[in-house]
Amino acid sequence: MKKSLFNNIPDALPNEWVEVLAESADVRIERIVSDGHASPDGFWYDQGQDEWVLLVSGSAVLTFEDETVELNPGDHIMIPARRRHRVESTSSTEKTIWLAVFHENDPI
Amino acid sequence: MKKSLFNNIPDALPNEWVEVLAESADVRIERIVSDGHASPDGFWYDQGQDEWVLLVSGSAVLTFEDETVELNPGDHIMIPARRRHRVESTSSTEKTIWLAVFHENDPI
Repeated sequence: MKKSLFNNIPDALPNEWVEVLAESADVRIERIVSDGHASPDGFWYDQGQDEWVLLVSGSAVLTFEDETVELNPGDHIMIPARRRHRVESTSSTEKTIWLAVFHENDPI
Repeated sequence: MKKSLFNNIPDALPNEWVEVLAESADVRIERIVSDGHASPDGFWYDQGQDEWVLLVSGSAVLTFEDETVELNPGDHIMIPARRRHRVESTSSTEKTIWLAVFHENDPI
């Protein structure tokens, strides 16, 4: 059954909103919706899995320890496991929809 | 380094165009670009892996043995391993961009 990344999003999002779209032993695909949310001051993600992330709509700024990356619709980036990062900001004028694919980084 | 799903697409696509965006032992993420392409008459995909697919831009019609599904931007669908399907049509007026995530369907 098909679904849409643009449907079934609550109007009010006090927190960032995460929905698992598909999951198996090896991979988890999530839709994440931000509504002006950012990582708390001083917080860094430090994940055990690789995360490939696509910005679907809205906009965002990711900060890494060595660079800052602005993401607009269609932009995608691979965040390898253990690469510390934070969401510096997301659009304050529209919801920001992300598609994230988490997976182990075992070599082929 | 960020990239965009909308950039670096050849103008002329005699065949459907596939680019691997990320790959590990467990998962393969592909950008697929169709330009009016469809599966050959009588051809059915019968894949050994689960495929989660998102239609990013353009439009398409997928045919399964028991249903036909029209996909527009933002629509996504999980195609379990061994579920036979074909691409019945893709937009004839613009390129159709797909994001596909192939992975083993091992239970969690």
